[in-house]
Amino acid sequence: MPTPNIESQTSPQAPLSCNQRDASNLPPIEDTICAPATAPGGALAIIRVSGPQALSIVSSLCSLNCETIPANSVHYTHLFAPLPDAAVPGASPSGSTTPVPGASPSGPSTPVLIDEALVSIFRAPHSYTGEDCVEISCHGSPYIINQILDLLIQQGCRMARPGEFSMRAFLNGKMDLSQAEAVADLIASTNRATHQIALSQLRGHFSGELSQLRQQLLELTSLLELELDFSDHEDLEFADRSQLLNLAQHIDERITTLAATFETGQAIKAGIPVAIVGKTNVGKSTLLNRLLRDDRAIVSDIHGTTRDTIEDVINIQGVAFRFIDTAGIRQTTDAIEQIGIDRTYQAISRARIVLWLLDEEPTTEEQNSMDSRCQGKSLIIVSNKSDKGISIADSSIIIPHSSLLSISAKHGQGIETLEAAIYSAANLPDLKESAVIVTSARHHEALVRAHDDLQRVLDGLVRQLPGDLVAEDLHLVLSDLAQITGEAQIITSQETLNHIFRHHCVGK
Amino acid sequence: MPTPNIESQTSPQAPLSCNQRDASNLPPIEDTICAPATAPGGALAIIRVSGPQALSIVSSLCSLNCETIPANSVHYTHLFAPLPDAAVPGASPSGSTTPVPGASPSGPSTPVLIDEALVSIFRAPHSYTGEDCVEISCHGSPYIINQILDLLIQQGCRMARPGEFSMRAFLNGKMDLSQAEAVADLIASTNRATHQIALSQLRGHFSGELSQLRQQLLELTSLLELELDFSDHEDLEFADRSQLLNLAQHIDERITTLAATFETGQAIKAGIPVAIVGKTNVGKSTLLNRLLRDDRAIVSDIHGTTRDTIEDVINIQGVAFRFIDTAGIRQTTDAIEQIGIDRTYQAISRARIVLWLLDEEPTTEEQNSMDSRCQGKSLIIVSNKSDKGISIADSSIIIPHSSLLSISAKHGQGIETLEAAIYSAANLPDLKESAVIVTSARHHEALVRAHDDLQRVLDGLVRQLPGDLVAEDLHLVLSDLAQITGEAQIITSQETLNHIFRHHCVGK
Repeated sequence: MPTPNIESQTSPQAPLSCNQRDASNLPPIEDTICAPATAPGGALAIIRVSGPQALSIVSSLCSLNCETIPANSVHYTHLFAPLPDAAVPGASPSGSTTPVPGASPSGPSTPVLIDEALVSIFRAPHSYTGEDCVEISCHGSPYIINQILDLLIQQGCRMARPGEFSMRAFLNGKMDLSQAEAVADLIASTNRATHQIALSQLRGHFSGELSQLRQQLLELTSLLELELDFSDHEDLEFADRSQLLNLAQHIDERITTLAATFETGQAIKAGIPVAIVGKTNVGKSTLLNRLLRDDRAIVSDIHGTTRDTIEDVINIQGVAFRFIDTAGIRQTTDAIEQIGIDRTYQAISRARIVLWLLDEEPTTEEQNSMDSRCQGKSLIIVSNKSDKGISIADSSIIIPHSSLLSISAKHGQGIETLEAAIYSAANLPDLKESAVIVTSARHHEALVRAHDDLQRVLDGLVRQLPGDLVAEDLHLVLSDLAQITGEAQIITSQETLNHIFRHHCVGK
Repeated sequence: MPTPNIESQTSPQAPLSCNQRDASNLPPIEDTICAPATAPGGALAIIRVSGPQALSIVSSLCSLNCETIPANSVHYTHLFAPLPDAAVPGASPSGSTTPVPGASPSGPSTPVLIDEALVSIFRAPHSYTGEDCVEISCHGSPYIINQILDLLIQQGCRMARPGEFSMRAFLNGKMDLSQAEAVADLIASTNRATHQIALSQLRGHFSGELSQLRQQLLELTSLLELELDFSDHEDLEFADRSQLLNLAQHIDERITTLAATFETGQAIKAGIPVAIVGKTNVGKSTLLNRLLRDDRAIVSDIHGTTRDTIEDVINIQGVAFRFIDTAGIRQTTDAIEQIGIDRTYQAISRARIVLWLLDEEPTTEEQNSMDSRCQGKSLIIVSNKSDKGISIADSSIIIPHSSLLSISAKHGQGIETLEAAIYSAANLPDLKESAVIVTSARHHEALVRAHDDLQRVLDGLVRQLPGDLVAEDLHLVLSDLAQITGEAQIITSQETLNHIFRHHCVGK
């Protein structure tokens, strides 16, 4: 949404203060864009208009003079299709000659009323995009929405590309690139985990970490440059190379830690993969249904949530766990046993957590096989059918670092404990709003590049290479990290930006 | 949307000025309702809150004091889940003990940030509902929307029923019942015709007509009552019965005219039924595709419009025409000919307009048969395949009042003329915003009842029945019409209102 208060929007940690647009090679933003910001089909719809002509264009469609009324105010008005001669000819970049929408075939003699609407006025720089902005809240009829968009375009707007409002917020210095990207993640968030990670990134916690790294890299650079400038003065004392090395190693550790969060970030975004394995009739489907049903009960009163996409995803404590289907796997004693085992192992290989469902004590051979397959994964051994008196002895389990739980999938006993065990097995960091977890492949790549470039810095420091060579690599590291936040000297082409914003929502 | 300006909202013609709620038997509105007003899946979402606690409840979730900030202003704020002890216990009507959403399993030590949002403040009576209202514009994530709704409910709101905001607008005297019903039609409008009719009704043009009728009925009543009061004074002159009869007939004509618009209103709402009939291979499908494609080109740049619902509906000059599928109908010379003809006749019986597609001159017998089947309908005879040199002579057509057009469905020649002929054949009234066309079955029923009751008035006047008997029937007519606008003395039960608003959108 628009952000009248620029101070509130830009987090104190965010490294940006300059106007990106002025500092980059991008052309100035001269056109005014419009787009629906809400999905079709609701009672109301929001149409956003942003750009230098936003106020005058909206004024031409209603009885308000948006250019003189106070910022951050809401006004009830009627939207009209202006008479053809009242339209601004040639104002539309496309030179559109579309007839006035809503006009009767013979042409209207009075302006045609399109809707009763609320118009909210925001002025540069105190808006979401940093430009003059208008939000039109109209009735949610697709006909009305299209009429209004048509009129806006006739009066000189053009349709916004996906994410273009956020791109402008970035270009106008309202947020850095990683924050603008977080907007799309926030809108797509479906549970506590994805919501908190996106919100953290939007609030600038990731940018703040990067800003600290940048400061340390600049410190390292200046120490090296000091060494260079005074290299002829052997009597002057400099930070010795071991001190520089310590600082570089410290930076590298932090970059590596950040990069390592990507695996978790990805898993949280897609749902943490869990395989339920076990023999036929051990109760896998019953368990899955039990877990799903418990989850369904929670989401059932959510208005309009699409159910299809959560078919196999279960929210546990606000984190999505994606259950890998191993239904149909049989472990029979006949010739096709191996096929079943192979398919089970495939499921295990894709999982981060394995639930091994049993209704009898596993043989030593079975345990050894499972143990070797689950290296690097969390294995939870689940003894099902407690309602039938089945209870597997702790002592019969020989797999190290595994836990044994007793449940009744049919009657629900032990399910809460199992859910807690699954959550715990995911070994997630504390998902509070300040947590920094990388979820973007673009950011991860930049961090990995920064790590690689930093290796050469470390190597150069160890091998006592000349300071100017080491400084060159240091600048690469700075550049790698700057790509994440999109600092002015890095983002130079509209194409790059289009690429980054192409998956965003229209109207945001 | 909310309506800060009550004067702009209530049309001058609207007969309402009193507060419906005070005048009726309905209990006062004490609870505060909330609902999403936009469809899920967009970049932004609007959540509406209306009722006596709207301002205080929203204040408890953000850093604003909504109770003191100016009406009709927009504020950027952070929405937080308050700490459990900060929640108002027992404020929720359901006594909900739901844990704080977004809270980590161990319970939050600081309020959990839910979103950055815009909050618009409206104060009673200058809002859509006439109550204190808040609109929260948040990011369109289903998770965020549900978190905010959960928080609002925890703080004392309840979820609004479909149409409940409009129902409150009615109960608080912001609009009459027919206007409130028009809101749902406006939101559902998909073309110029349905849009203009709904807007006309919302703007009070129908209410205005009813108000005029009401004045005339009251005049008639007072003349009758004058007659009663002074019936002993034979020397006094009264309006004679023929004058009363004239007035009653005039009122009945207007009621009949209004009721008669319902057929057109229904057809416009559902799409005006058109049958394309003709022999196999005469080009029916080609023509339908040609008409659909032309229409598709117009709607193709409409963002997010659901196409499925317009599969067989073609917009011509902003009016929906629903083409009745007669594909598969064969007129062969063998034994199954009769079945084909029967199916064609079924299609014709459901149509208002019949396109008879030909590629050879029809026989006299065929023409006579078609003529007798198309009584009361508009018949357009279309000579197809003009590109192949086929041209049916005007002189060969003997059906009176039919028109003959020559087209090439394959190449598109004559299609615009055909569309104009279809539009003209629909014989629609001028669809401007002030047009009054009845589209609601409830309104139509009330008008028909009013007409029936008025027949007894006319009969009583003709038969010189005593004035008090005639006045009794006149009161029935007044009551019939009052049901349309929902005047206070008529609408007495919440059940009736629930019935009327049950098909409305949630959040409107």
